[in-house]
Amino acid sequence: MITKLHNDRLLRALRRQPVDVTPVWLMRQAGRYLPEYRATRARAGNFMRLCQTPELACEVTLQPLARFPLDAAILFSDILTVPDAMGLGLSFSEGEGPQFARPVRSSADIEQLSVPDPEVELRYVMDAVRLIRQELHGQVPLIGFAGSPWTLATYMIEGGSSKDYARVKGLLYDQPALLHRLLEVTTQAVIAYLNAQLAAGAQALMVFDTWGGILTPSAYREFSLAYLAWIVADLIRGTSNEQAPVILFTKGGSAWLEEIAATGCTAVGVDWTVDLNEVRRRIGSQVAVQGNLDPAVLYAAPDQIRRQVAQVLADFGSGPGHVFNLGHGIQPGVDPEHARVLVEAVHELSRPYHAGIGN
Amino acid sequence: MITKLHNDRLLRALRRQPVDVTPVWLMRQAGRYLPEYRATRARAGNFMRLCQTPELACEVTLQPLARFPLDAAILFSDILTVPDAMGLGLSFSEGEGPQFARPVRSSADIEQLSVPDPEVELRYVMDAVRLIRQELHGQVPLIGFAGSPWTLATYMIEGGSSKDYARVKGLLYDQPALLHRLLEVTTQAVIAYLNAQLAAGAQALMVFDTWGGILTPSAYREFSLAYLAWIVADLIRGTSNEQAPVILFTKGGSAWLEEIAATGCTAVGVDWTVDLNEVRRRIGSQVAVQGNLDPAVLYAAPDQIRRQVAQVLADFGSGPGHVFNLGHGIQPGVDPEHARVLVEAVHELSRPYHAGIGN
Repeated sequence: MITKLHNDRLLRALRRQPVDVTPVWLMRQAGRYLPEYRATRARAGNFMRLCQTPELACEVTLQPLARFPLDAAILFSDILTVPDAMGLGLSFSEGEGPQFARPVRSSADIEQLSVPDPEVELRYVMDAVRLIRQELHGQVPLIGFAGSPWTLATYMIEGGSSKDYARVKGLLYDQPALLHRLLEVTTQAVIAYLNAQLAAGAQALMVFDTWGGILTPSAYREFSLAYLAWIVADLIRGTSNEQAPVILFTKGGSAWLEEIAATGCTAVGVDWTVDLNEVRRRIGSQVAVQGNLDPAVLYAAPDQIRRQVAQVLADFGSGPGHVFNLGHGIQPGVDPEHARVLVEAVHELSRPYHAGIGN
Repeated sequence: MITKLHNDRLLRALRRQPVDVTPVWLMRQAGRYLPEYRATRARAGNFMRLCQTPELACEVTLQPLARFPLDAAILFSDILTVPDAMGLGLSFSEGEGPQFARPVRSSADIEQLSVPDPEVELRYVMDAVRLIRQELHGQVPLIGFAGSPWTLATYMIEGGSSKDYARVKGLLYDQPALLHRLLEVTTQAVIAYLNAQLAAGAQALMVFDTWGGILTPSAYREFSLAYLAWIVADLIRGTSNEQAPVILFTKGGSAWLEEIAATGCTAVGVDWTVDLNEVRRRIGSQVAVQGNLDPAVLYAAPDQIRRQVAQVLADFGSGPGHVFNLGHGIQPGVDPEHARVLVEAVHELSRPYHAGIGN
């Protein structure tokens, strides 16, 4: 990987180094709100085949970058590829969300789980990472990702999406040791998977703890945060001198920002239920901060989008350490031109906050 | 209403007066987890007819009290009866949730809304309140309730449940003045409705702000909390010397407890994402606290339910000012015997926390 990185704002901001303007990318920036994505997905036939075909995964990863001046690419994939590689049999039915053919329901099911070899069972992801890195030609850095062990466990046990998490929480309260065994093997799988993404060319990593926020504080610490900390500690984090940055994001986790920052991660992602001035005051001296525009702002008119972008930038304030993003994934119903308004507004309106300290 | 109240633990705890044991009731304590509820609902034909027939609403309100030693009854109804009375045409389709035939979509729709007369358009609710008070024979107090204006507005604008709140948030960001007009008339309707429930015999009131937690901090203050404060300020709160207690509950609102307490409400309901020792430290000198067992604990085995009940009681600690409840409604899949375990455990395990200060 000797290609020079032309735009290193993301990596600099994650390391809290000066930048000219605040870098911006969007969770789910490749996705259903883009007509070109829907066309590629239709060509693939279904969502799993889109994930499993490196050329198509690469194509959709690059689509938003062709439209908007984004400061990062993020691997197009799904957090559930890891449990799929562990043998659970993932499929996506239209409108129904993810489904596992063989959910984990018993002690025996858990004992049978093993850590997949990312270059074998998840080879299609690693091939996609290599291809995307090549096709990016150093334009922007590539972010790799995985789901958090707790978040993956909710799907592995429920068998898909859930409204009340009856099974996984029943296990948590009744047989915590058994849930810990599931989380341990899943954590090892996630670590191997993220390290393989780094080896294949990912330049930053993000762990999505989508369902950490449904836990009590003590259950969050025991069943989610502990495994996030293990992941951060065990990542090779790059083969060069500098460690690859790791972003941790617990949706609904704004009460626990200090504890998330204390894992040793590089950056903490936050949703929109907390103001960035508070976030910066609480953890800004330890980590970079990623977020946190309400994704629903993209349903508003362009002048309102600019106004809300300005507010998030003002909340963070001057100086480095901020990566602009939504507080959750971009919604399928959003007008792509509204995403453009957001990205351009971040670059334009953030410049004064970096004046005199630019690189 | 000259019937003597035999069990006044709830009212005493809400006023932070000494009690012998911690009072307990469960959000959605009358509901689908009870076979006798399902039988009555089947007899009613559909959910709306169940709400609109005072004898049946009374019957299901009393069902959980016949099973468990609960310390309060809560009116069986739905938060969406108010927008229905405002002309939106509510129905419930099986498995689909609530639907409005005439959702609010335009400025003209909002201008047409007016405050219903609770004794006319919502007479069936008032008749239910009167009948339940009579049939309770002073066994326990009766809690009346309403949805918060913001929560009602989400359904009124979306037309039903929503995943991304595109319409209501689009309006919030694009045309805040228009949303405020909707919230104003809805607040007036809620105040009239709650006052009418008090006049009909409700002895405490609760306002459910189910969707306040999806807002940014500033949007929460402007579009939800301001209207909660208005409601608290404008309630007649009882016709006797003592004001009727008002409980405010914003799900996902644990970041804003101080601001909720500052409305002047009697008690603040909290979900399970915050520990009660923290809640008590932050607002316990101003208000009573209601909550906050994770409803999913009821999927666990009885000994685990007792253990988690003990933890919530220990978190609150000694002395008055705690009403035990779940952090959200009881789920349809719960075994009714598990609800019994919870209720009995609260009474049994809370006694030491009130020793020496009992009434």
